Amino acid sequence: MITYDDVLSAAERLQGVAHRTPVLHSRGLDELTGGTIYLKAENFQRVGAFKFRGAYNRISRLSDAEKRAGVVTVSSGNHAQAVALAARLVGASAKILMPLDSPEIKIHGVEGFGGEVVRFDRYTQDREALVREIAEREGRVLVHPYDDEYVMAGQGTAVQELIEDSEPLTHVFVCVGGGGLISGSAVAAHALSPGVKVIGVEPEAGNDVQQSLLAGERITIPVPHTIADGQQTTAPGKLTFPVIQKYVSEIVTVSDAEIVTAMRFAFERLKIVLEPSGACAFAAVLAGKVDLTGAIVGVTLSGGNIDAGKFAGLMG
Amino acid sequence: MITYDDVLSAAERLQGVAHRTPVLHSRGLDELTGGTIYLKAENFQRVGAFKFRGAYNRISRLSDAEKRAGVVTVSSGNHAQAVALAARLVGASAKILMPLDSPEIKIHGVEGFGGEVVRFDRYTQDREALVREIAEREGRVLVHPYDDEYVMAGQGTAVQELIEDSEPLTHVFVCVGGGGLISGSAVAAHALSPGVKVIGVEPEAGNDVQQSLLAGERITIPVPHTIADGQQTTAPGKLTFPVIQKYVSEIVTVSDAEIVTAMRFAFERLKIVLEPSGACAFAAVLAGKVDLTGAIVGVTLSGGNIDAGKFAGLMG
Repeated sequence: MITYDDVLSAAERLQGVAHRTPVLHSRGLDELTGGTIYLKAENFQRVGAFKFRGAYNRISRLSDAEKRAGVVTVSSGNHAQAVALAARLVGASAKILMPLDSPEIKIHGVEGFGGEVVRFDRYTQDREALVREIAEREGRVLVHPYDDEYVMAGQGTAVQELIEDSEPLTHVFVCVGGGGLISGSAVAAHALSPGVKVIGVEPEAGNDVQQSLLAGERITIPVPHTIADGQQTTAPGKLTFPVIQKYVSEIVTVSDAEIVTAMRFAFERLKIVLEPSGACAFAAVLAGKVDLTGAIVGVTLSGGNIDAGKFAGLMG
Repeated sequence: MITYDDVLSAAERLQGVAHRTPVLHSRGLDELTGGTIYLKAENFQRVGAFKFRGAYNRISRLSDAEKRAGVVTVSSGNHAQAVALAARLVGASAKILMPLDSPEIKIHGVEGFGGEVVRFDRYTQDREALVREIAEREGRVLVHPYDDEYVMAGQGTAVQELIEDSEPLTHVFVCVGGGGLISGSAVAAHALSPGVKVIGVEPEAGNDVQQSLLAGERITIPVPHTIADGQQTTAPGKLTFPVIQKYVSEIVTVSDAEIVTAMRFAFERLKIVLEPSGACAFAAVLAGKVDLTGAIVGVTLSGGNIDAGKFAGLMG
């Protein structure tokens, strides 16, 4: 299981490479919630999301031989761009499997970072088999989006920085997909804020981790229908789940409407852009899912990759 | 005429009261323009725009007797909220004349800062006469949105901070309405970056300052039709114009479409929210109005007050 030393080691790797993103604070938000709220703005991270942290921590540790062979992953989202950029920075090639129906803007994003995009049909082809086949045939290292200890530890640096740049927390809210961000964050939070409550936030339609914690084992659900496209995972990871069991106090869920409200608040009051999954943890705070009177609260704003047209559609 | 000492004095006043807003930098933007671009993010200022700087610099200098009498201004925009907040911070009352058709969100903003809103009909009532009548009858100090040396010097602290937090500039782009921001900024820019070119940016439809500079005297135009509602002024100020004549190299104009493009770039690439006037100076840089190859460029992002619905309409 990863430890705080792994997070510290990741922080060393990321020094001068990842952005130390700002911690935002809003008087209005404190008045609204009754707590002191610190927002870690990972929408300002390289590639627009926290995903760069984990990808770079993993990829910067490749051996010279591995760098020559390159990396491969499958992702239609922020992890794709994160892997492409991290690979370019260490001089490795990256193959990214993306569904045929991925938005052009995301394809161009990956290609802009020098990644090679391989399209596949998500309805007829098995993505896991496909990516493993490429990894084996070409000797490429598979960079998993969450179920990898270097990735988990790398993501944990977001909450490490959040606490270093604010104060010890009583609560921290983190969005949950496969569990990479929350597992690293939970380890960092407990190391720097003993007694902290780590609260995971899932979209209502995709509460696989909430169900898994209640059941005491990993539960798989159908692909959830939610605007939070970064959290359409169907089960917690094999490596992330035990960390979540050990360090996470509870999982709360938010509706798509609550996510839109949080995106609107971020836009109008904080003047920043959040994608739906990026606003998920914040939505739980705004919707009052937990009483925060007198609490010292950290919240991850995990990403801001949404095009203006899509945002307009959600606000319309 | 204001001098750099006035800007420094304003900076002292604002210390610990105004936010020292971040200076943003984007590799992608540098590649696009061929220059090094520093963006001063005044959308993160208190009340969401640079206007707080000038208002507070003016209002914090009221005598005790003046504070007891309070202040008055007329504004439907960011200056209204800036005056309301600044007055509250020094314990003075504020009366803000706002047109009957002002958006409710702006009315609530002023009232939220404790300002008293007085509605008037902008089609039948003379705003200048009205505000002067209240000032005289109630002994209130009129806080002009730009034609006031304390206001001008206060706004100049934005560019002072921009240069202190980056490096000496070859060019600085500043949006122009009545000329408060650009006059203070031009004085600060020339003090900290000798030889700098100060470039004012107006909406195409409202180029009263451009016309005035060419004519060598203040020209008045009809109220311009533009989405840049912070720049619907009809003439440069009496006090701002001589400063602009002395320190501003040129005025360039941008179309509403170019402003929308800049707002979209800020949203999608920088993950920040700009209102139309707030994106005006940036629009000139993005549209390539001036060759910036090898230049070291400062740009004011002057405000971010736009509701999500209106933004959606512009992006649709």
